[in-house]
Amino acid sequence: MTIENISVNKSFDGWHKQYSHQSETLNCTMRFAIFLPPEASNGKKVPVLYWLSGLTCTDENFMQKAGAQRIAAELGIAIVAPDTSPRGEGVADDEGYDLGQGAGFYVNATQAPWNRHYRMYDYVVNELPQLIESMFPVSDQRAISGHSMGGHGALVIAMRNPERYQSVSAFSPISNPTNCPWGKKALAAYLGKDTAKWAEYDACLLMRQATEFVPARVDQGEADDFMTEQLKPEMLNAAAEASGYPLELYRHDGYDHSYYFIASFIEQHLRFHAAQLNK
Amino acid sequence: MTIENISVNKSFDGWHKQYSHQSETLNCTMRFAIFLPPEASNGKKVPVLYWLSGLTCTDENFMQKAGAQRIAAELGIAIVAPDTSPRGEGVADDEGYDLGQGAGFYVNATQAPWNRHYRMYDYVVNELPQLIESMFPVSDQRAISGHSMGGHGALVIAMRNPERYQSVSAFSPISNPTNCPWGKKALAAYLGKDTAKWAEYDACLLMRQATEFVPARVDQGEADDFMTEQLKPEMLNAAAEASGYPLELYRHDGYDHSYYFIASFIEQHLRFHAAQLNK
Repeated sequence: MTIENISVNKSFDGWHKQYSHQSETLNCTMRFAIFLPPEASNGKKVPVLYWLSGLTCTDENFMQKAGAQRIAAELGIAIVAPDTSPRGEGVADDEGYDLGQGAGFYVNATQAPWNRHYRMYDYVVNELPQLIESMFPVSDQRAISGHSMGGHGALVIAMRNPERYQSVSAFSPISNPTNCPWGKKALAAYLGKDTAKWAEYDACLLMRQATEFVPARVDQGEADDFMTEQLKPEMLNAAAEASGYPLELYRHDGYDHSYYFIASFIEQHLRFHAAQLNK
Repeated sequence: MTIENISVNKSFDGWHKQYSHQSETLNCTMRFAIFLPPEASNGKKVPVLYWLSGLTCTDENFMQKAGAQRIAAELGIAIVAPDTSPRGEGVADDEGYDLGQGAGFYVNATQAPWNRHYRMYDYVVNELPQLIESMFPVSDQRAISGHSMGGHGALVIAMRNPERYQSVSAFSPISNPTNCPWGKKALAAYLGKDTAKWAEYDACLLMRQATEFVPARVDQGEADDFMTEQLKPEMLNAAAEASGYPLELYRHDGYDHSYYFIASFIEQHLRFHAAQLNK
């Protein structure tokens, strides 16, 4: 396995680092970023929060804009940010910003031309944590979070793998992708027209049937232009009530879909995760 | 005077807003950003920190990457970030990243073709504060700070206008531009070959002769690739010692020239300014 360090920056007495590696799952070169808190420099194994970004993003958006490192440094949590899709010249793409490169939707695609590379679900659940846990001083205590498309990914992945995650959170997630334009377009392309196959990637449907629970927190801005048509937080609330899922959903007057919203509440998310992570 | 609102984002219970306006000083349309803390929404006049960015930046880099809003919201300080030069199709430019658009160096250019638009010194000292103080609920208490080229600008502007600023700070400033490649290139282009004219834009030369003082803080990363050739913090320290200037200079092991460094210490800078601003 080849892995290459791309950049290193000291940050809040910890380290932000970018790496590229050849992904077996995705059949292409992938980049990810990791923030290692100061505790990790002393050989202590720290828990890891995986952050899944939204449409058009890379590993950089969250690391540069969320202001998470200050709190992660204080709490002794590592943060890993993968890219949002496979990338590269040989990787299928689409002209829309909401399909193809930058829009992997954290699924395992079954349809051509996507099925050759687009297996972000397996990458995030299996290959990336194996790599992180073999390379860095981290424990097997994991949390997962994300924004928008990444909030969808985080909720789906935590609910399908409750034994692997101590906690899950999301900002402005695409809660019910089988029932919104972004989700229908992506799931039809990646999984085909049989909508029964879409259910395993829908947070609302998974939450409604759940019997094993991962403590969950979701924050949604009320001035988010995508809320009504694409995000549907009310559907997630209804699903949680149906199954008794331990979901804390907070709605915030005036906040939009941007990283200014994420930065305003990332501290609460990290403290939520820290309370669950058995350090 | 026409001024147009471009964007609004709620941030830490305050507001981040971008505006464009026709600048009389610069003879072009300029964009700036302002963060208004929650106190400003209650009609209270708040002090203003002006932030001057470095080479290639716009108003967005600091607002998106520094994580300053959390502390500015707590302390009740507005932050204003102008662009780093005049911009537009009719504005002179250069192929280098370190001259022309994105590289105004906060001077009043006297040489063609630059002298038609490049008057960032007057813009930052006069036009922009007049506009801000007429439009927003802010007091006439001002602080100024910046990074790299913007650190140079902040130090020069505060030292030449001690009656207008309560405090000044800088991250990784170009301390002695008459004596480094970036500075020599820019000052020769904007001011001409007579190096005597450059002195009024050199923080070290101004600090060495200063008789009126503005409390000053500077932070420099020791792993900054530009430190030795371009930034020369030791020259600033020597100048402060010569005149007894109240300069606090901190050097930080392992930190580089990036916004990861700025984000790590912006809280200390804002608290430094808050202690001087008479609210």
